[in-house]
Parts: sequence; structure tokens; C-alpha cells
Amino acid sequence: DLGHFTKDIGKIEPDYVRSFQFENKLLPLTWVVVRIDGCHFHRFSEVHEFEKPNDEQALKLMNSCAVAVLEEFEDIHFAYGVSDEYSFVLKKESELYERQPSKIISAIASFFTSTYVIKWGDFFPHKELKYPPSFDGRAVCYPTYKILLDYLAWRQVDCHINNQYNTCFWMLVKSGKTKTQSQDYLKGTQTREKNELLSRQFGIEYNSLPLIFRMGSSVFRSKVIENGIVSGKKVEGEVVVDHCNIIEHSFWEEHPHILSYS
Amino acid sequence: DLGHFTKDIGKIEPDYVRSFQFENKLLPLTWVVVRIDGCHFHRFSEVHEFEKPNDEQALKLMNSCAVAVLEEFEDIHFAYGVSDEYSFVLKKESELYERQPSKIISAIASFFTSTYVIKWGDFFPHKELKYPPSFDGRAVCYPTYKILLDYLAWRQVDCHINNQYNTCFWMLVKSGKTKTQSQDYLKGTQTREKNELLSRQFGIEYNSLPLIFRMGSSVFRSKVIENGIVSGKKVEGEVVVDHCNIIEHSFWEEHPHILSYS
Amino acid sequence: DLGHFTKDIGKIEPDYVRSFQFENKLLPLTWVVVRIDGCHFHRFSEVHEFEKPNDEQALKLMNSCAVAVLEEFEDIHFAYGVSDEYSFVLKKESELYERQPSKIISAIASFFTSTYVIKWGDFFPHKELKYPPSFDGRAVCYPTYKILLDYLAWRQVDCHINNQYNTCFWMLVKSGKTKTQSQDYLKGTQTREKNELLSRQFGIEYNSLPLIFRMGSSVFRSKVIENGIVSGKKVEGEVVVDHCNIIEHSFWEEHPHILSYS
Amino acid sequence: DLGHFTKDIGKIEPDYVRSFQFENKLLPLTWVVVRIDGCHFHRFSEVHEFEKPNDEQALKLMNSCAVAVLEEFEDIHFAYGVSDEYSFVLKKESELYERQPSKIISAIASFFTSTYVIKWGDFFPHKELKYPPSFDGRAVCYPTYKILLDYLAWRQVDCHINNQYNTCFWMLVKSGKTKTQSQDYLKGTQTREKNELLSRQFGIEYNSLPLIFRMGSSVFRSKVIENGIVSGKKVEGEVVVDHCNIIEHSFWEEHPHILSYS
Repeated sequence: DLGHFTKDIGKIEPDYVRSFQFENKLLPLTWVVVRIDGCHFHRFSEVHEFEKPNDEQALKLMNSCAVAVLEEFEDIHFAYGVSDEYSFVLKKESELYERQPSKIISAIASFFTSTYVIKWGDFFPHKELKYPPSFDGRAVCYPTYKILLDYLAWRQVDCHINNQYNTCFWMLVKSGKTKTQSQDYLKGTQTREKNELLSRQFGIEYNSLPLIFRMGSSVFRSKVIENGIVSGKKVEGEVVVDHCNIIEHSFWEEHPHILSYS
Repeated sequence: DLGHFTKDIGKIEPDYVRSFQFENKLLPLTWVVVRIDGCHFHRFSEVHEFEKPNDEQALKLMNSCAVAVLEEFEDIHFAYGVSDEYSFVLKKESELYERQPSKIISAIASFFTSTYVIKWGDFFPHKELKYPPSFDGRAVCYPTYKILLDYLAWRQVDCHINNQYNTCFWMLVKSGKTKTQSQDYLKGTQTREKNELLSRQFGIEYNSLPLIFRMGSSVFRSKVIENGIVSGKKVEGEVVVDHCNIIEHSFWEEHPHILSYS
Repeated sequence: DLGHFTKDIGKIEPDYVRSFQFENKLLPLTWVVVRIDGCHFHRFSEVHEFEKPNDEQALKLMNSCAVAVLEEFEDIHFAYGVSDEYSFVLKKESELYERQPSKIISAIASFFTSTYVIKWGDFFPHKELKYPPSFDGRAVCYPTYKILLDYLAWRQVDCHINNQYNTCFWMLVKSGKTKTQSQDYLKGTQTREKNELLSRQFGIEYNSLPLIFRMGSSVFRSKVIENGIVSGKKVEGEVVVDHCNIIEHSFWEEHPHILSYS
Repeated sequence: DLGHFTKDIGKIEPDYVRSFQFENKLLPLTWVVVRIDGCHFHRFSEVHEFEKPNDEQALKLMNSCAVAVLEEFEDIHFAYGVSDEYSFVLKKESELYERQPSKIISAIASFFTSTYVIKWGDFFPHKELKYPPSFDGRAVCYPTYKILLDYLAWRQVDCHINNQYNTCFWMLVKSGKTKTQSQDYLKGTQTREKNELLSRQFGIEYNSLPLIFRMGSSVFRSKVIENGIVSGKKVEGEVVVDHCNIIEHSFWEEHPHILSYS
């Protein structure tokens, strides 16, 4: 039996088989953003009865996983999350997995998922995880600091627009309208109209809603000051979560160490 | 505060930010193989005290996750696993995620990881999972049935070579040699010499070792025969695990439904 | 002066500069089709007063260049041309330029262009070349013989549709209609209607027009039979031009040596 | 006959055939460098009896073609040439051919080649062009101004090293040594030793050799000053050739309009 087997071994040409691999790598010296998204999380959030429009525990679980990702991958300097998505920013000089997109994306998505399952019970002690959650990912390169900030601003604008819409939508549904009626009601409304709807009809001041819902979550290392000077190459500070405005450049000017650019 | 925020929103140009995304897709009509590998599993297997050279429970956990993957992704028609790696074969015609490699690879790696963590306790009821395991992935396209079988054969040859080496190595270590001494002892030995070493020195007939160690694990849907005919387009059978010789073409000739090719 | 210069030399890190190169290669074992198209040839054909709807000399110049390309690149086994475009088919096993698309495409486009300029006078002895013509190119991989034939058929269908339309259009223009009137006249007409228009109004039997206009041009090596057997690996025959129907499979069945596939 | 043909037409699915095209594009907002190289120019220069180590007329023909390229493609802001290679720098914001590498590279290589053949007689009035010259090309993206200048400096360093070596090599050959003897003689020599060899043995001061040989050729638009101010967006000046030191940053500081960066 093994006789046949070993004879067969000789016929395989690993170099030829391997020649089909394609070796693409992300352009050096560009900011790499890896964004992961929950797969079919619409269904996942229903099955697990997440609160609508926002489930604070589910968001905190996401944030906790993002913190773990930054602790695991030191080349990731910033992350921004909203709903079931998270964007991770690798420093321009990163040589993680030799900048191979497949490996970078899958390793981050896998580690995030692993942490999500392990920490589930910490955030939902009374809810069973009914089936395996998963996240898919993609990578984009941004060649300048300015366009990277535009990307992050775009995600926060999306957070704002979606949260405002969802807050209105679910208040209408809870007030007795069907989902279709609520959609029709909101069609074409502007920011100001939505805020007025919430205020007049439901007594909700949009701006007084929790920051985590309105601003999403930013994850980064806090600045470590030793003997009065910011520590050198290695940004070592504790990983923190904040719900700040990252569209305004003042945030970045006040935290130059996060995406220190030269 | 929101005033500033909404003013800022207008400055973002999502189309421009999105234009940095690159849309590559895997060549149509080719077999796509996604291979995932455990990240730093050398350390993982030590921390979790896996048996050497093979931990049967760890392998069965891997297999159980691969079965879940085939149940989740119906375009995956075959999988082959050994040690901490698993290769998944998508049918040529698959349009999963529009054949975008990033999404396909990350979704499979993420789902596999999720299942691994959830099922850990079933296979290791008395061992705590000490930290989040993760898997990275990559994809390769194979344009012909023949070269696809060569790929799978290559993985099984690797399984054989590694398992034989590891079996010898760990028997030497268990017999009192240091790891370095054991490596030196095995340097340059051929298949036959390794088998003789196992047989004479340790009374082990290599060919009587469990198939799961020697052959790795193949995962596929069993053939469903309804009314005497193999069911049509949708291959629906139960997902099974086997430890067969996939180098010999007889396996493929006996199971034409797995990678039914035209 | 050189002192400065040589000091500067030391500062350059060629490996780093080179690391920005991306090494993509066309999937092995697939048919590579390189298609080149004339850049701004609408203008080129006007400036050089090409006959409408077809300039036979211009087509013959194109064909002559394609023959030269097949004589220069032995991995190219077939070419099909129509109007100002030409498709070149490389054998599946080609390792030309290590299958790097940039080099393959540019080398073929450049050689074709070079020949076009050199041979211009042979085909237009009384016309001066008024400015440098140029061609851009692209590559596509086709994994199966069947889809490769579909590609070639698609180009010949395009040839037919465009030629029929253009023949009608220019007959209408020559008969006194403006270009806009002619376009409007033809809008929505079917194949049969166009043939009837040509026949009734202009006394032209479409099927009696020269094959080079209706079928485009196929370029390949004629079969070489030595001592009664088709010569082996190297397809050596003289490169010929034909205006045959390559949509019908009979052509391929009668010329199996062209794209000999296993 | 056409009956069959038109029936066949219906079977082709252009969308499916087209789905095999891959649409990659060069990362936006990065400097694109297209470098073309003469194909087999070692042989070409022998057949056409180019002077060694440098044929001034051949270099001037190359430069003349590069000037034509800059006049044809307004997005190309700078070019640097040496021997049979030329690098073209597209502005960061270029949308030429929607940044598709295949088309950009092939169109530039093709236009350059076309011009080379057409202008051959102007530079070699007494030499016949014996066969079609051709150039292959490739593209690289550079995300920062600094690394772009490093790329250009690398090419000029290469020019210097090759020219110095070739000058020594051909002087030795002309003095009676064989090519192999000359190679052996030069093996391992440093810059200073080569200069001393030229000076002592052949009475040649390396630094007094023509700049075109030592520095290569830079091609760019001269600054247009209208009414005392540099003209706006469109850099319109006449295209000029210079043989300057582009490694020293002073060149770039004195010509900020060439690669005006923000």
C-alpha cells in the first residue's frame, strides 16, 4: 500500500503547483485600511435579540474585540467602529505578512472573530450564542495622510446618517407603524426634519443620545509620556476607546502620536 | 456642536474615497482553493498541551470545523486538512462574493475560527481555551481538473512526509534524546530508513498508525441517490469525513460527483 | 563635482526603490489573448483618407504586421484581426516574459507598431505617413479551449455586425444623405433589413462582398507535414492569412494543430 | 452560408466572454512611472553599428522620441533616459486610460516606437533600419515625492556606473584586449580606480566626457512665465532636453513647476 503511495509521491511537482500562486502585495509606504463587516448580521442581531436601533452591549463587545486586535497587532495604530463594521489602520511602514493582502485581512478578521466568540459571555451573560458569527474583510491603500482622514471621516459621516435614520425608524415602529410605513414616512427627509421628528413626536433630543451611538468608537493607544517626553519609536500606551469627533482635524492635531506622519 | 458636524459632512466625497478600492476578482471558470493555516500554532499547541506528534482531539476539532464550513458554503465541494491547515475547494462556477478573493478568504477563515472556538469544549471538555486562536488564509486558482488534483496530492504528500518525520522525531525525544540530537539523527534519512527506525527501535509499524495521521482528512458530501439516480445540480448529501488516499486517481473516479467536471 | 555625485550615490537604496514594483503574472496554463487597438484611429483614417467603409490596403497592412508578429513570437499560435484591432493568442504553456502582462502586451504592441510604420510605404506607396500611429493593448486569460473559441467567435460576430452596418451607412452617405440622416435611417434595423436595403437600393449582394471585409482575417501557421507526419512540438509552418469562418467549429476541427489542446 | 453564420451569432454571450477581463487600475494619487526598455537592443546596436560605448546619434534619437511623448501625453511631466531605456513620470492626478496599467504602458511604448522608426532617417541619414525595433514597458507607482526622486536618482546612478564601466571596457577593447580580458581587468575595481585607469592609460578625464553620456537625459516642459507669473494649472512650456544632475535636490528646488506637489 505504502509502496504505491511513495511511488505516487515522486510524480508531484510542488514548484509547478506553487507557480499558480499569485503574489500581490499592498503598495509600500501607503496607509493600509482593513475593514471587516459582520456576515449576515441583520439575521444575527435578530436571532440574538439585539436592542434596536442600537444594542449597547453588542457595540461594547465589538469595541472590546477591537482593543484586543490593537493589542495583538502592534502595526495597527487606529481603529474606528460602528454597528457591525470595524476599520483598522496599519502604519504606512508596516511589513505585516510582507504586505500580502490575503493574509493580513484574514488574520485580522479571524482574530477579531475568535475574540468575539470568547468574550460573548462577558457582555451577554444571559444570552447563549446560537450559531457561529463571522466577519468578512477587505483592504484599501491610502497614499496620503489627508485621504486617510477623509476615509475615516466618511465612515463617521455614515455612522451619523445611519444612526439618525435608524433612531427615527425604530421610534416610529415602536409607536405602532409598520416597517414599510416607517420607511415611507422617512423617505426624503433631511437631517433637520429627522431631529425635529424625534424632538416633537418622541421628546428625544438627538444630541443628548449617548456618544457611542452618535459618534461610533475610536480605538487607539494613549500617549505615554516618560520624563516629560513622548516615548520613541514604539508607541506603547494602553489601548483606549473613545467616542470623539474624528472628522474635525482638531482631534488629529491633539493626538499627533496616533498616526505620526513625516 | 452638531452644526459643525453637519457642515463637515458636506466636505466628504465618498466616491473619491471609494475610488482607492481595487476590485480584483479570481479568474472565472477556474477551481478556487482557499487554504487556511493556524497563526503561531506551534505556540498554541504547546500552551494547550497537544499530544505529539499528533493530537487526535485537535485534529477532530479541525475536521468538525471543516464540516461546518461545507455546510455553510454550498459552493465548497471538497476540503482536505492536515495538522493546523485546511484547503477548501470551490466549484469552478462559484460566484461567491463575486469571486473577490479578500471577502472569500476572510469569510471562510472567520467562520472556521468561530466554529473552532465554539466547539473547543466539545473536544477538550477538561481544557480551557487560554487565548483566541486564529487562522490566516490565501487563495489560488487552478484552471484544470488535473492540476487541481496535483495540488491536493501535493498536500497529502506533505502530510505523509511531515507525519513520518514527526513520528520518528517525537519517539526519539520521548526515548531521551534532546530535540537537537533527534534532528541531527534524522537528517538526510529516507522514507525506508525512517520506517525501519520506527520498526526496529520502537516496535512501531508505520503503516499500522491511524489513517487520520497518515492520510490527513478529506471532507465532502456523500452521494445522494434518489430513485436510482444521482440527484441533479445541487449536491445535497450529508457532509462526511474520510481518511482516504486522494493521490490515487481511483478515489476521484469512484466519487465523480464531488468535483463533477465537464 | 563628481565628489558630490559619488557621495550622493551611496544614499540610494535600489532594493527599497524596487520594492514598489508589483509582480503580477498571468495565471499559468491559461490561453492568453492580447488585443491591440489603434489609438484614435477614427482621426488617423480620416487624415490618411482611408476608403470607407473598408480600406483594403489598410487591412492588408494590418495583416502583414500580424504575420510579422507571429514570425517574431513563436508562442503566438493564432491571430484574428478586424478594422484597427488585432487579437493574438498565446499558447497555454507560454512563458514569454515570465507571463508578466505589462511586458507581453507592450512588446507585442510595440513590435506591431514598428512594423506598421516600416511597411506603410509598401501598402501606400503614394501616401505619406502624416504622424506616428500607435496601438494600445490589453490581455485576458481564458482557462478553457471552449471559452477561447467563444472569445474569437465574439470578435468575428462583431466584425460582421459592424461591417454590415458600416456598408449600409456609407452607401447611404455616398447616396447623398447626411451622416445623421443615415444613422437615423439604420436605427433599429435587423440583419435581414440591412441586407435588403443593400440589395434593393444599391444593388449590392452583401454575401458577394470580399471575404476580408465580411470575415476579418485569421493568421496562423500552415501545417507542416514531413515524411507523412505532422511535425512535433515546434509548429514551424509558414504563417498564412485566411478569411475563414472561425465561429463554426469545423474550422478548428480541420486545423487541430493551431491550438493543439490536450 | 450567412444563414448558418447568423444562427451562430446568437450563441455568443459577449457579457460572459468579457467577464474574464480583469480591471486593475493603478492606485490613485500616486506618481506613475512607466519605464520602457529596448527589446534585444544589444543585438540591435550591433546590427546597426552603434558607436561604443555611446552612440550620440542613437541617444539623440531616443531623446527626440521622448520629447514627442511629452508633447503627445500632457499628463507626463518628466522623463529620464539613458542608453535604450526611458522612464516617464505621470502626474499624481492623471486619469489617463482610467489608470489602467496595460493601456497606459502599451500606448506609451507604441507611440515611442512609432516615432523612433519615423525619425530614424533624421538621425541616421546614411543607415538603413534593418528590422523593426521594439520596446517593452512596465509601470510602478510611487506614493511620495521623496521616493519618486529616489527612483529617478537610482536611474541616474545606474547611468553613471554603467557609463564609467563601459567607457573603460571599450577603451581596453580598442587598445587590443579581448572582451573577456577587459572584463577580468575591471572586475572589482572602484570608481576612483576606473577614473585613474582612463586618465593614466588613455589620457581621458572622465569628468570632461560629454554630459549626455555621464548624466543621461532629462526631458521636461520649460517654465512659462507670462506677465511675471508662472502660468496656472496647465504647464504649457516648450519641451526641453537637459543633461543635469537630478540626484541633487537643488535641481528640483529650482524647477518646482515640473513635479509641482502639494
